[in-house]
Amino acid sequence: MAKQLNKQLGRSSVHIEDAFWNRFTELVRETVIPYQWEALNDRIADAEPSYAIRNFRVAAGLEEHPYGGMVFQDSDVAKWLEAVGYSLANHPDSELEHTADGVIDLIALAQHENGYLNTYFTIKDPGKQWTNLYEAHELYCAGHMMEAAVAYYNATGKRKLLDVMSKFADHIDSVFGPEEGKLRGYDGHQEIELALVKLHQATGEQRYLNLAQFFIDERGEEPNFLVEEGHQRDGYSLWAGGKRPVPTVAQLAYNQAHKPVREQEAAVGHSVRAVYMYTAMADLARLTGDQELRAACERLWNNMTRKQMYITGGIGSTHHGEAFSFDYDLPNDTVYAETCASIGLIFFAQRMLMLEAKSDYADVLERALYNNVVGSMSQDGKHYFYVNPLEVWPKASEKNPGRHHVKAERQKWFGCSCCPPNVARLLSSLNDYIYTASGAANTIYTHLFIGSEARFDLAAGSVTVKQQSQMPWKGYASFEFTEVPGGSFTFALRIPSWSKGQAVLKVNGQITEYTADNGYGLATRNWQQGDIAEWEPQLETQLTASHPEIRANAGKVAIERGPLVYCLEEADNGAPLAAISIAASGVLNSYFDDQLLGGAVVVEAEGRLDEQDSWREETPYRPYAKQQASKPVQLKAVPYYLWGNRQKGEMTVWIRAVK
Amino acid sequence: MAKQLNKQLGRSSVHIEDAFWNRFTELVRETVIPYQWEALNDRIADAEPSYAIRNFRVAAGLEEHPYGGMVFQDSDVAKWLEAVGYSLANHPDSELEHTADGVIDLIALAQHENGYLNTYFTIKDPGKQWTNLYEAHELYCAGHMMEAAVAYYNATGKRKLLDVMSKFADHIDSVFGPEEGKLRGYDGHQEIELALVKLHQATGEQRYLNLAQFFIDERGEEPNFLVEEGHQRDGYSLWAGGKRPVPTVAQLAYNQAHKPVREQEAAVGHSVRAVYMYTAMADLARLTGDQELRAACERLWNNMTRKQMYITGGIGSTHHGEAFSFDYDLPNDTVYAETCASIGLIFFAQRMLMLEAKSDYADVLERALYNNVVGSMSQDGKHYFYVNPLEVWPKASEKNPGRHHVKAERQKWFGCSCCPPNVARLLSSLNDYIYTASGAANTIYTHLFIGSEARFDLAAGSVTVKQQSQMPWKGYASFEFTEVPGGSFTFALRIPSWSKGQAVLKVNGQITEYTADNGYGLATRNWQQGDIAEWEPQLETQLTASHPEIRANAGKVAIERGPLVYCLEEADNGAPLAAISIAASGVLNSYFDDQLLGGAVVVEAEGRLDEQDSWREETPYRPYAKQQASKPVQLKAVPYYLWGNRQKGEMTVWIRAVK
Repeated sequence: MAKQLNKQLGRSSVHIEDAFWNRFTELVRETVIPYQWEALNDRIADAEPSYAIRNFRVAAGLEEHPYGGMVFQDSDVAKWLEAVGYSLANHPDSELEHTADGVIDLIALAQHENGYLNTYFTIKDPGKQWTNLYEAHELYCAGHMMEAAVAYYNATGKRKLLDVMSKFADHIDSVFGPEEGKLRGYDGHQEIELALVKLHQATGEQRYLNLAQFFIDERGEEPNFLVEEGHQRDGYSLWAGGKRPVPTVAQLAYNQAHKPVREQEAAVGHSVRAVYMYTAMADLARLTGDQELRAACERLWNNMTRKQMYITGGIGSTHHGEAFSFDYDLPNDTVYAETCASIGLIFFAQRMLMLEAKSDYADVLERALYNNVVGSMSQDGKHYFYVNPLEVWPKASEKNPGRHHVKAERQKWFGCSCCPPNVARLLSSLNDYIYTASGAANTIYTHLFIGSEARFDLAAGSVTVKQQSQMPWKGYASFEFTEVPGGSFTFALRIPSWSKGQAVLKVNGQITEYTADNGYGLATRNWQQGDIAEWEPQLETQLTASHPEIRANAGKVAIERGPLVYCLEEADNGAPLAAISIAASGVLNSYFDDQLLGGAVVVEAEGRLDEQDSWREETPYRPYAKQQASKPVQLKAVPYYLWGNRQKGEMTVWIRAVK
Repeated sequence: MAKQLNKQLGRSSVHIEDAFWNRFTELVRETVIPYQWEALNDRIADAEPSYAIRNFRVAAGLEEHPYGGMVFQDSDVAKWLEAVGYSLANHPDSELEHTADGVIDLIALAQHENGYLNTYFTIKDPGKQWTNLYEAHELYCAGHMMEAAVAYYNATGKRKLLDVMSKFADHIDSVFGPEEGKLRGYDGHQEIELALVKLHQATGEQRYLNLAQFFIDERGEEPNFLVEEGHQRDGYSLWAGGKRPVPTVAQLAYNQAHKPVREQEAAVGHSVRAVYMYTAMADLARLTGDQELRAACERLWNNMTRKQMYITGGIGSTHHGEAFSFDYDLPNDTVYAETCASIGLIFFAQRMLMLEAKSDYADVLERALYNNVVGSMSQDGKHYFYVNPLEVWPKASEKNPGRHHVKAERQKWFGCSCCPPNVARLLSSLNDYIYTASGAANTIYTHLFIGSEARFDLAAGSVTVKQQSQMPWKGYASFEFTEVPGGSFTFALRIPSWSKGQAVLKVNGQITEYTADNGYGLATRNWQQGDIAEWEPQLETQLTASHPEIRANAGKVAIERGPLVYCLEEADNGAPLAAISIAASGVLNSYFDDQLLGGAVVVEAEGRLDEQDSWREETPYRPYAKQQASKPVQLKAVPYYLWGNRQKGEMTVWIRAVK
């Protein structure tokens, strides 16, 4: 039943119409998708060429060129197509659909007779298929193309890419598996697992779910496939272009393949790989009822979000391997917090919400979405952060090699361009993250407060609800029921962590009691057509402290306002920002500044500026007793997601607190 | 005249007898030199073999083995021999001298007919001499052996190694120079320049001084020798073992060869290379009267010590290239601050003092010596820090790859073992750093307060003075004149920066006025035999703040007491240390703890400990308003040079200050 309902709660059943989010979804539709199309076709001046479409033309036999780009370049085309699918579902566009159909025709031409599809191994390394799962991203690329196929099919009803990818999935199923003669292997970069779940849901084919389960179950088992495979290749490394030591089992923590997934206790290794895997694990736990897998998901979720997550929803604190380091190690300046990792965290959170409606999952989803993810994209949609720092000193980014990875300005399309298309596919499918519903329990859960019109099929009958939201600026959303079933059903509203449990429900203007359960306010009643529910979670500007074990933030506070994390920028507060402290018990004023980058609430706070004038250039250190009184100063904080859109300068989220 | 006097102020004219320093000089003599001898002979269990002596035996034709160790492994033998020379000068030891003589015989056997001497190019790459100055450290190794030769000759009067190295210097002089047919080149790693100055002083040979001047003058000139040489080798790289891009002129900032030395404005590149070069520049400025070179020295000194030096006297803030990064970039946790770089800084400071007695040079010399350098060695003399951090979180050193270079524990002899023998040669020649004298001006300058007996030859006649010092624990040193000339002379005493200009002079018990000049208290009088001068610079425990541009230290203070920087260790204060703050206007108590690692003054301070009990494991972030009051706590700080000698744990120099 749940499965069926999930299908009915498909992409077309929720449409966003929201003052805050429309600009992003329009940006994706009007700018990002067309711009990325140009990028995939190597037509962006001054940016590294992608070669992604050219590779498909070459693989299809239409042109002759050497292979271009990374080994996983195909996935950029896939992510673009997936975004196009979501976009078409929400906003039909015949010209864009025509372009996408052309790409799909090209992809079909590049497919081998037996179903195999990968331009790298077609053009550059034919005959070497499935010999380097550790490095070559073959199943990863396949997974992204499966996601694209499902999104495009759901949007347009066109089966061509779905059939191409089903044929490829059948081929993969004939190559991998526990049976004698098949490879007991899996990809070095998880992705196909969650994609096969989607393909299973779109096609109804049970074998695809089984194959996903096989990849998850096999991972990290002894003898370790990736180690054995390395010996088979005699240590040949694609990246090094020569022989390299075969990784040890311990080193495979990078790929989360150091031990069986059910035994993994903490988030380790490459953060994107990790969250893509956890997403598939949560899918499988839901669809198969595997309690052990569910327990592993909860354990990994808890470790990651409670001990290894930045306040912005960023994960992965070191650029060495784009990886998790260890509990409470969250440096703000040498940070990684890759955009793709937060997107994967959002996928994982969504699947956990499908397992169990618990506000913790939605709180984290919202945190990552409104801060790390949206902040990664420039206001023009053409520049992106890979790395999302919480503290930036532009000179250090330039001149200290340990911070070269932290850019002070968003960059154009990258050589390894995973993040921009990932942002596009997330934002164009944002409608999928607002609600979940339990048809059997006749309950609709509202996770995000984003203006939209949604239709749900419950056991009791159909519900259509129109949400209007003033978030993130005000703690107010209203829900008008324009279609209701005959009987009662439960409308559940998330009580955001930032409201500190203070949220008022009104029904038709009357304050109404509700039952709080798992972080949601539940109103079960015989809802009538035209009923209006208003939801007012307390949304205040507040200072936030972090756990004492997070050494990087000791003595510091961050400014938060509802789902938004704020930051200080040099543009508003001068430099060095480190000379500024904030009055911990001072007044925090907020107001909407419609001149600021499309309009945003800014926060003003009482602060102190360390006295600097008495310092001479020639004195690096001097008695503290010489320090003169700090001066009172008005601080201006802007939402983190807007940082770096005005001028290159310092930025900080965490600010020293003074009494 | 100056030159002659410098010679008379040779190593044998100052003998240390000091409560604080004897343990270090004895440690070097009794433990470090013998231990390093074992290391050079590959007899330290569990440590990487050195192969340094074995290479010489192979090069001498006595044994057959492949070359072992780094390309500059010869320099370890040289630095050991140099330390032995200094040690023998202060403390004759026939057995040690016999061992050293044997090594010298071996070195002589390894010398080529034409004077060339280098085991790497003798054993591993014969015929490739002088083809890779950029990488191969040939002149660097030569320089270290010249320094050893001079030290050994000065100590023992034995000329064998001096002759060997003079012959090599003659050969080098025949290969390098501005003349047609010679290489207009220089080494990728500066060292020979300062060594040739020493060889010139020991032998009186002017050509060696000229050659040093050539190397300095040629460096960074266009066309760039290191670039040209790279093209000649067709990009062959010794380190990579294959072809690599030839460095650009800009990249040669690493080697301080990006522009002529006289045009260099700021300290850049590999920090040890830099300070070795500056040392030679200061030598040459003094010996040749080159004012332009002197101005460059002063400019580079000022930039380095005022904007790129840690409070511990550490320099070079990034491990990427063991290099300077840029002004005010002094991170405490990802720091480099290599031991060898601070030793080179001490060399440079000594030469600047020889140019001009200015207390700034001695203040920095003292800072680096009493903190970074002495702290690099364990109390057993057998374990060393390469990297001298100002903040350590052992778990981060283990688990965050960006901090792997920062060790929480001193290590045994290293594969690349530059630091331990460098410490040994500095500490065994410490007597050379206490005084300088201007014979013509009849002035003796006292830079360091270290108990010793010293003899000076001034124009007025000979002076012998016996210093007794209670530093670094108390601001007291006395000077008894046991031999005086007939006329008057000036006895100058450094007014340490930490005394804030407060220093009392007593002569024979009577407070006596003095003239303050360039940071020295000058007492010119007709000193009588038996006169006793007492010098009492104010030595108080104080809190130190750092320049607002040093972002890493914003809002923090360090504890200093005289020349010593203090730190908090987990052993005394628990963890996380970041939860601790210090009362900026609180009382600072200090007392001598004779149980602490041989006895040291510890500092107790009033502090606050952030409340931690109300935090739950599952809450990474929460409203600051929930924060409960911090608790008063007694902090215990120990001298930085003693850190890491008790247990592995957190350490921090900079402490958050609260009012």
